[in-house]
Amino acid sequence: MTGLSFRTVARSGEARAAVLTTPHGEVPTPTFMPVGTQGSVKTLRPSEVAATGARIVLGNTYHLWLRPGPEVVADMGGLHAFTRWPHAMLTDSGGFQAFSLAERRKSTEDGFVFRSHLDGSKRELSPEIAMRVQGQLGADIAMQLDVCPPGDASKADVEKACRTTTRWARRCLASKRHDQALFGIVQGGTDPSLRKLHAEELGALPFDGLALGGFSVGEPIMRMHEVLSEVAPMLDAARPRYLMGVGTPYDLVRAIGCGIDMFDCVLPTRNARNGQALLRTGRVVIKQARYKTDPLPLDPTCACPTCSEGYSRAYLRHLYLAGEILVLRLITAHNLHLYGQLVREAREAILQDRYVEFSRRWLSDLAGGELESTA
Amino acid sequence: MTGLSFRTVARSGEARAAVLTTPHGEVPTPTFMPVGTQGSVKTLRPSEVAATGARIVLGNTYHLWLRPGPEVVADMGGLHAFTRWPHAMLTDSGGFQAFSLAERRKSTEDGFVFRSHLDGSKRELSPEIAMRVQGQLGADIAMQLDVCPPGDASKADVEKACRTTTRWARRCLASKRHDQALFGIVQGGTDPSLRKLHAEELGALPFDGLALGGFSVGEPIMRMHEVLSEVAPMLDAARPRYLMGVGTPYDLVRAIGCGIDMFDCVLPTRNARNGQALLRTGRVVIKQARYKTDPLPLDPTCACPTCSEGYSRAYLRHLYLAGEILVLRLITAHNLHLYGQLVREAREAILQDRYVEFSRRWLSDLAGGELESTA
Repeated sequence: MTGLSFRTVARSGEARAAVLTTPHGEVPTPTFMPVGTQGSVKTLRPSEVAATGARIVLGNTYHLWLRPGPEVVADMGGLHAFTRWPHAMLTDSGGFQAFSLAERRKSTEDGFVFRSHLDGSKRELSPEIAMRVQGQLGADIAMQLDVCPPGDASKADVEKACRTTTRWARRCLASKRHDQALFGIVQGGTDPSLRKLHAEELGALPFDGLALGGFSVGEPIMRMHEVLSEVAPMLDAARPRYLMGVGTPYDLVRAIGCGIDMFDCVLPTRNARNGQALLRTGRVVIKQARYKTDPLPLDPTCACPTCSEGYSRAYLRHLYLAGEILVLRLITAHNLHLYGQLVREAREAILQDRYVEFSRRWLSDLAGGELESTA
Repeated sequence: MTGLSFRTVARSGEARAAVLTTPHGEVPTPTFMPVGTQGSVKTLRPSEVAATGARIVLGNTYHLWLRPGPEVVADMGGLHAFTRWPHAMLTDSGGFQAFSLAERRKSTEDGFVFRSHLDGSKRELSPEIAMRVQGQLGADIAMQLDVCPPGDASKADVEKACRTTTRWARRCLASKRHDQALFGIVQGGTDPSLRKLHAEELGALPFDGLALGGFSVGEPIMRMHEVLSEVAPMLDAARPRYLMGVGTPYDLVRAIGCGIDMFDCVLPTRNARNGQALLRTGRVVIKQARYKTDPLPLDPTCACPTCSEGYSRAYLRHLYLAGEILVLRLITAHNLHLYGQLVREAREAILQDRYVEFSRRWLSDLAGGELESTA
């Protein structure tokens, strides 16, 4: 009915390689979803996003709801037709941004009430509205509305978030479009027993996939990985597992090892626009004077168009300091290519049952350079 | 020596089709040079610029001199290697920007003294320095330093500008790199007799091409075209003729008809960044509410990637209002494609000796929409 299916083709320890089939093609997993906040993976054309290896992108319901509005997107044939992205697409519920970006927001049993950060207009986001808006956007996969407690929330608050999230899960399932897949979101903070309980609750519902929310929200990053290694394997193995909003290359390597299949994060695209190129072995902060006459590409071992077409660090630095838009494209493409390469190599390693070796090599290359939290 | 040659292959009235051969390939003329102000045709990769049909771009010496500095560019192998543009390139002398952008500038018999608009540092631009800097940048074609009087200058001031420009012409020729081509710049305002005198003076010097400067500097646009129709044919027919800083599609159609071979103008790229798409039949100002749910491409008859890949006006409007960089790329590519198509079709018409018919059709299509000055 939803056109979604998930088939695991290999395992290596807890890590798994699978194929997520959607109405817009197959997505080999593990996969990284570039974030197309406002209907565009910032600076890139869809063909350039696909060239990084991405076969699924994420759209932000909050942003598209406020502008251009889901009616406009629906009028134009849905988000795929509107944005010219031919592959798979997932939208979040809008709840996270409604809570983090909007003004004068408050939570109720029914959802969120807030004012638009664009024009101050009053909005209500209930489970039913989240489903209606995502239905109008028409991505292959929608996300349930959930409550995401901050990293320092009390146990009572985390428990309450889980209970509300479960109630909203049922309401989302009851009101979703029949032809759209829906993922549930497991909360529980950094408490493995709460996570286990919530994973069982949501796992009992007919979701097409299960996500882990509420990570990378301020907790120590090593604590996240400890909890992940306990919690990820608790999620129903027959369905895709999606770790929301995470993370660095380091985070991906570790989480894939725990059995996570899907990721999204603004890090590679946002850092690019701040002039930070991500490398297997660290970062190039392009504005630094050391690159003034550096003839090397960002990463001499990289096969992305930016690195293989001979753009020197010196040229990229010049463009960055001169405020030229081209550099934002060139670094964005490079950073997303690194993520694409990481998940591609991870999948290959799983298929050959040598994920531990792969993981050891990447973590050694990263050498602590990417250890910081994504939060 | 300079690797430059110019061969006229057909004429239609005063209009001519030629081939300008440079060390970086052949440029069929008439040709339009997209402006790569700071070492980048704004928002586009070199391959995208070439895809519009452009085979020569213009670099701004003033900007590159101040940042990153000609030594850096020379260190990196020159502007071609630095920017990854494989085709022909021309640099202006820097004089126009030194006068229009810099602070506290003054003219002397030796050139210009000014303060950088970036850091206030004091700079001198003499004919010899203009040649040295352009030599370091290493474009195929350099431009002499000239004096460009404003559109409302007195006859005495225009005459003085011509005399100084001629003296600087000799100094530029004496100090230029032997392997770099150099164009002279004919001044004379809107006075055909002054233009004629100056064209003869500079035509007697061993320039590789002759440019018309001092047009589109505030004079009525119809006056420019009247003067052009008298002056362009006065320029030595054996050398390329370049009309600097002009113009609209209307201007190009008219000026090609007078025998001009080369153009540059920021209009297609700058207008794109202001959300204005140029069409054969007018403009699309993309922010307008009328495009909110318009499913059409910018121009349904256009073959550029933006129009042929199905980006709707509604989507482009959304991206523009949302501040997304992608839209600047998409409209820039479209606008440059229109210019590429115009000069390609003009050349075809000249080869078939039907330029008058071509011109009549374009001017009728443009229907007054592009009549305004480029100034």
